[in-house]
Amino acid sequence: MNFRNFPMVPRVIFGRGSFDQLEEIITSKRVDTSAPFIFLVDDIFENTDLEKRIPLNYNDKIIFVSAGTEPKTSQVDTLRDQITNEFDRLPSGVIGIGGGTLMDLAKAVAIMLTNPGSAVDYQGWDLVKVPALYHVGVPTISGTGAEVSRTTVLTGPEKKLGINSDYTPFDQVVLDPDLCAGVPLNQWFYTGMDCYIHCIESLTGTYLNAFSQSYGEKSLELCNEVFLNGVLPEETSRDKLMMASWHGGMSIAYSQVGVAHAMSYGLSYLLGTRHGVGNCIVFNHLEEFYPEGVKQFKKMVDRHGVEIPQGLCADLTDTEFDTMIRVSLGMAPLWENAIGKNWKQVITPKKLREMYEKM
Amino acid sequence: MNFRNFPMVPRVIFGRGSFDQLEEIITSKRVDTSAPFIFLVDDIFENTDLEKRIPLNYNDKIIFVSAGTEPKTSQVDTLRDQITNEFDRLPSGVIGIGGGTLMDLAKAVAIMLTNPGSAVDYQGWDLVKVPALYHVGVPTISGTGAEVSRTTVLTGPEKKLGINSDYTPFDQVVLDPDLCAGVPLNQWFYTGMDCYIHCIESLTGTYLNAFSQSYGEKSLELCNEVFLNGVLPEETSRDKLMMASWHGGMSIAYSQVGVAHAMSYGLSYLLGTRHGVGNCIVFNHLEEFYPEGVKQFKKMVDRHGVEIPQGLCADLTDTEFDTMIRVSLGMAPLWENAIGKNWKQVITPKKLREMYEKM
Repeated sequence: MNFRNFPMVPRVIFGRGSFDQLEEIITSKRVDTSAPFIFLVDDIFENTDLEKRIPLNYNDKIIFVSAGTEPKTSQVDTLRDQITNEFDRLPSGVIGIGGGTLMDLAKAVAIMLTNPGSAVDYQGWDLVKVPALYHVGVPTISGTGAEVSRTTVLTGPEKKLGINSDYTPFDQVVLDPDLCAGVPLNQWFYTGMDCYIHCIESLTGTYLNAFSQSYGEKSLELCNEVFLNGVLPEETSRDKLMMASWHGGMSIAYSQVGVAHAMSYGLSYLLGTRHGVGNCIVFNHLEEFYPEGVKQFKKMVDRHGVEIPQGLCADLTDTEFDTMIRVSLGMAPLWENAIGKNWKQVITPKKLREMYEKM
Repeated sequence: MNFRNFPMVPRVIFGRGSFDQLEEIITSKRVDTSAPFIFLVDDIFENTDLEKRIPLNYNDKIIFVSAGTEPKTSQVDTLRDQITNEFDRLPSGVIGIGGGTLMDLAKAVAIMLTNPGSAVDYQGWDLVKVPALYHVGVPTISGTGAEVSRTTVLTGPEKKLGINSDYTPFDQVVLDPDLCAGVPLNQWFYTGMDCYIHCIESLTGTYLNAFSQSYGEKSLELCNEVFLNGVLPEETSRDKLMMASWHGGMSIAYSQVGVAHAMSYGLSYLLGTRHGVGNCIVFNHLEEFYPEGVKQFKKMVDRHGVEIPQGLCADLTDTEFDTMIRVSLGMAPLWENAIGKNWKQVITPKKLREMYEKM
């Protein structure tokens, strides 16, 4: 057996208000005054207090990015080109501020600033050969685990697949739960459920081990406190959900996700469905695979009065179904984790089509 | 408020048998064939199968070290001198294989191979200015958390105090629970209780935050499974205790230990009491500070039929008591975490003497 030698985020700061230490943290990493820091920031923060708190110095630059669509390989290439065209030298680093989309874009742009070609060339496992530029993750919504993961999930022309590499993880993460204040209910719920689903998929998977299990169990407890049982003050709830996301990310990093993610990738690829809501749409129909997890999930949906979209696949053509099924079946490690080595006998294209048709 | 920007171990591998991947892991870190890896190994492994599995190549060297006494600054200096006298150039790295003593020695020797002077000069906070040599931790007993900590606790001529620095943490940790097979009951228990006590001290401390809490709660659950409630197969128990130690170490790293550690440092300094048993001797009498924690601890002691030594301080002189009290009161952050900012009003020399007299 070969065990993964997992690269962890080497620096983390946690605390309400810790964002204000970002300037001090990056100052020691500035190459010189003409090598800027590039802040990739979710455009919902344009003209807000958070924008004013971003520590710009010298020729540092903020690039606002919409997180309205899933991150794309072409978007990564364009951002890289924009940066290399504007500056005649490499930046000092890239700082992502936002949710999973911004986390993934920051990781991918940091990789593509030091590696030739297109982001498409690196979708897969261990294809990155040159260390990425220094990159920092500042999550402003909790659940994706992108702040600790070894991947950056991108939709390319052919596939939705991550750049999985030892150079992908952030060099530094700033966990400031206060930045998550004001997230709209639906988004808070869908993104939080990404974490919950990570836990269920990891803890019930065939790849499980004591390392993943300990992180997954703690993350699940925290999810339950936040979404199911707890009556928590808002600040406490934000603290706990940020740690749930962190531990959930660690859990899947050392095991794998499962059926919900494999199917949700198909939805996202074809319909552009956002990852968080896509997971919920799929997971809502997975009693067969995760009976207890889905039961609790439905309770959480009820408790928070969230509507899970239905009928997305009602009017799809055969060709469209086939595309979704092809993308989903391409996620072999996810299926193997969920079902076992003989997964292809269980998850046939016909079976997948029947499942998608319900969604 | 200033939050700590915590350096995490950047690489970790977990799994039964993962020790066999050590060669592959360090090969990429070898500077060249004349720069050896130095393996600092607990001498209980001399002439055992584990010794044969240590991947020696070129001029790599094993140095066996007794873990019969707490690690000392003078010992670190001697090991450093031995290495620099034998080799005319810097090693490629230092690999510690053993319990907390070997972990701390490996971290300290890696620091002292690149920093001038004596280890004494670096006891304290952030006194190390030059990055340490590449260093790897391979724990063979679980509980101390030394595999993830930012310190290396050393007894010097004046004090027992860690080298706390950003350069102290290991560059790589190999978590192979199989290496913990065969640890004698008492040692297993005392070292495991180091972890349990970390959790109690962290979770009840005034420095607690959601980051520490999540790690501490998970670690405590795992300790309870292993020592209190669980009827676990031996392999599962080893897996879980290794993760308990890991999470417990993370919990105190982002908060602090408390009364048991502060007093146990005094015992160790004066009497050379080993850290694990010293913590148990002290904690056994701390109902006043940790009522629930001590109650559960006593159940664990009973369940495993372990004898906690008594009467260590029965025949001490006034001067000896004063020495212990001076060392213990020197641990200000530990007392402040346990009691609060006004701790000096509660923990007077008289109070400490009365407490030590019971032990």
